[in-house]
Amino acid sequence: MYSLAFGIGTKNSKQSWLEVFFPKPLFKPDSKLVQDITAVLDYGGGNQDIDIFDATIDKLLKVINDQDQVAILSAMRGSKKPRVATILATDSALATTPETYLKLHLLSHCFVKPNEQNLEGIYAMLPNVAWTDAGAVDLEDLAELQLTARVEGRILEVAAIDKFPKMTNYIVPSGVRIAHSARVRLGAYLGEGTTVMHEGLVNFNAGTVGPNMIEGRVSQGVLIDSGSDVGGSGSTMGTLSGGGQHVVEIGKDCLIGANAGCGISLGDRCTIEAGLYVTAGTLVQVVDEDKNLVKVAKARDLSGQTDMLFIRNSLTGQVECRTNKKAISLNDSLHAHN
Amino acid sequence: MYSLAFGIGTKNSKQSWLEVFFPKPLFKPDSKLVQDITAVLDYGGGNQDIDIFDATIDKLLKVINDQDQVAILSAMRGSKKPRVATILATDSALATTPETYLKLHLLSHCFVKPNEQNLEGIYAMLPNVAWTDAGAVDLEDLAELQLTARVEGRILEVAAIDKFPKMTNYIVPSGVRIAHSARVRLGAYLGEGTTVMHEGLVNFNAGTVGPNMIEGRVSQGVLIDSGSDVGGSGSTMGTLSGGGQHVVEIGKDCLIGANAGCGISLGDRCTIEAGLYVTAGTLVQVVDEDKNLVKVAKARDLSGQTDMLFIRNSLTGQVECRTNKKAISLNDSLHAHN
Amino acid sequence: MYSLAFGIGTKNSKQSWLEVFFPKPLFKPDSKLVQDITAVLDYGGGNQDIDIFDATIDKLLKVINDQDQVAILSAMRGSKKPRVATILATDSALATTPETYLKLHLLSHCFVKPNEQNLEGIYAMLPNVAWTDAGAVDLEDLAELQLTARVEGRILEVAAIDKFPKMTNYIVPSGVRIAHSARVRLGAYLGEGTTVMHEGLVNFNAGTVGPNMIEGRVSQGVLIDSGSDVGGSGSTMGTLSGGGQHVVEIGKDCLIGANAGCGISLGDRCTIEAGLYVTAGTLVQVVDEDKNLVKVAKARDLSGQTDMLFIRNSLTGQVECRTNKKAISLNDSLHAHN
Repeated sequence: MYSLAFGIGTKNSKQSWLEVFFPKPLFKPDSKLVQDITAVLDYGGGNQDIDIFDATIDKLLKVINDQDQVAILSAMRGSKKPRVATILATDSALATTPETYLKLHLLSHCFVKPNEQNLEGIYAMLPNVAWTDAGAVDLEDLAELQLTARVEGRILEVAAIDKFPKMTNYIVPSGVRIAHSARVRLGAYLGEGTTVMHEGLVNFNAGTVGPNMIEGRVSQGVLIDSGSDVGGSGSTMGTLSGGGQHVVEIGKDCLIGANAGCGISLGDRCTIEAGLYVTAGTLVQVVDEDKNLVKVAKARDLSGQTDMLFIRNSLTGQVECRTNKKAISLNDSLHAHN
Repeated sequence: MYSLAFGIGTKNSKQSWLEVFFPKPLFKPDSKLVQDITAVLDYGGGNQDIDIFDATIDKLLKVINDQDQVAILSAMRGSKKPRVATILATDSALATTPETYLKLHLLSHCFVKPNEQNLEGIYAMLPNVAWTDAGAVDLEDLAELQLTARVEGRILEVAAIDKFPKMTNYIVPSGVRIAHSARVRLGAYLGEGTTVMHEGLVNFNAGTVGPNMIEGRVSQGVLIDSGSDVGGSGSTMGTLSGGGQHVVEIGKDCLIGANAGCGISLGDRCTIEAGLYVTAGTLVQVVDEDKNLVKVAKARDLSGQTDMLFIRNSLTGQVECRTNKKAISLNDSLHAHN
Repeated sequence: MYSLAFGIGTKNSKQSWLEVFFPKPLFKPDSKLVQDITAVLDYGGGNQDIDIFDATIDKLLKVINDQDQVAILSAMRGSKKPRVATILATDSALATTPETYLKLHLLSHCFVKPNEQNLEGIYAMLPNVAWTDAGAVDLEDLAELQLTARVEGRILEVAAIDKFPKMTNYIVPSGVRIAHSARVRLGAYLGEGTTVMHEGLVNFNAGTVGPNMIEGRVSQGVLIDSGSDVGGSGSTMGTLSGGGQHVVEIGKDCLIGANAGCGISLGDRCTIEAGLYVTAGTLVQVVDEDKNLVKVAKARDLSGQTDMLFIRNSLTGQVECRTNKKAISLNDSLHAHN
């Protein structure tokens, strides 16, 4: 059993799911628990979403001992919002909206790291939703709700029109700071000790091992290892738009400087100076510790190596890769009090 | 008749308009409809804002057949918020707050493209407003409302202090995604199939023909043609601050790379590599397909040409314009499910 | 007496302060007022937070004549939220949460400029808080409140997980525009005539003298003098993460171009062209008005000089410092109507 979770969410007027909140998803749950739950749910195997009602919840409460699950089922009992049990026997391609939301939760609960799950079909399974202060709203209903609110002297705040909600309205992992939550999508993986500043941005299926300082963009698929810092407006090249096929990984104790960018993977203790964008195709002068030229290489051929310092030589305009003698260390006073 | 619309909005204690929401503005409306409406409103010609009350709405409902207008007038009937009929006989310089809001609506409803309307005087006609979760608030009243909320155990959320509101609280055009709505002002023009990611930003009188992927900044006056992608923190130089007088236009199937920038217009199928800022004054080595130098030109003299690939040669530091052999295509799975 | 203020705030279930709102802090208050107030509060000297209740407020109202203070105390009377009088005899290292909030208020009320106050110990004195539409929430209580809201058909909007709140929910200084308030922390100093656009970002203990156009990042410790413009995604290098020890100051009438960055101080009338990042270690060709080389210098050795224009020569790739003949002037129509 891959995962099992009880959720509460929103359906549109056609009874299609718009989104599901799973307060305490179970990852690779205990087989006894699975057995007890699935017996009540009349589960027939495979990946399933099973709508649950108060009567089912009463039965579940009789067989479940797990305190977290008891607490959330008790809380959900009596709610007028639709509730669901989502059971994933296997990590297969995505087939429903609830299971897609469940997999995004598994990432943000730090059960699985980016690229460890099968997310095939994700865009088709996520409806485009108006995220408002009255919850998720079907786009077809939005204009009328906006007018009604206005007439009544209220505002319907429409925070986003998107397939993905913000992470913090579903789960806040422990030991993190997120200066502006609109910049972190559900499905982001933020390890303990991660600070995402206002200019930081973490997509779904992307994230940080922690501790990390993130003031730039962590694109879909990218994982930043511990001790590394992505400076303000720093860019990690993604594979969805404009970038190539290579999935960027950033090692430990790296610094991608402010306004810099990175289209290759970096091993540990690498630095890209502020303002320099290293794309996979950049031709790089590799120099030794005495600044003698060793070779000229495409950046993609340096991908994943350690202790690299990338700069653009301000006397020649050439991009150089030097040995990085001064790897960064994160600001202790900033990170000690998360 | 240029435009006619019924709105509901907010006035301050001095009875000045702070903002107006026009749910269904009419652009170049049918003359019969205009005749019916203006007869009821005692309209004397020219551009006018006419305050309307329930009695007027009752009369209007008797003469109007247009179903959209009937629906909004019926909804507005009985509201305690001020309502207005704004009639623009001509597209003249802006003279009132409601007509300014109406013209911003016309852009965001995609009736007119950027730079097609007369927006002269716009800053003076838009009061600076505190945009809160209790609606638009006059700055003079803000501090007291904030204290009152606190004393009552609430927070008055102040989302912006600005002349322009966010677009999505007024209109969400069809077929778009906007990952973070605070970044798109009312008056933005977003064509169908446009995705504005978290780092995207679209000013008023600026926008996209659609489909487009916008992860950077579309400055006032700039229009991005279909199929083009503005990468993360990509910049299009505007004319309001720091930039020059040239209004930038971006053609079809262009890519402004992540952290790149563009101070000239681009024809179709142009690419600016990630991290390179091409200003109007940049001296560019124009090279042919065999990489032989053709000429050195100021970027402004290349403005508007097609099939250009701008890179900074990482061996020489020179900015080059090559023939763009590999124009981008947008990610189909991303864009197919808007 | 350094400062004295009455506040209303939020405590967690352990009765620790999460945050305090001081509507009208007094800076270097009149000694007669101090005497009257401290007599009622049984103040014993030094820096103190004194919890106040309705009975104390009644006594205070009898001795205070200052109309602003009378108004806020009257408003706070009867509130169920905890209230506090914070008295700072001296500008010492920070020792409590309320006094830290008070010092952040002093910055945002423009009583003190960045770097003029002792903020030692600030991170340890600020708890990490969930900033929600129901106010400040202790992180330990968040998950349960989120579930309760969902079950009741509501959303608990979690806007940030941070030590610092947004400034505008505490104070909006006069004569400013802030296009997106999540980007300006409490403790920012925004002088009259400052416009912070959507891409602008102002940290605590950082800011602008005003008038200014801020479309980039003003890092902790950085002060931008009047007439200067930080372009979109423009970066000022801070001292907290990745940068060095030098506190950057930007003079009058400077322009840091879009996607540019600055790791040194600039005197008046300096420009860094769009897309160029000048770090302290950048080797710069200093050229005279005839473009003859004067010397090669590290940028840090040019720090603080006036009338510099930094560009990367697009023919050589070299960073040059020329004499800036065309200092910017802010857009009058943009700035005249704040």
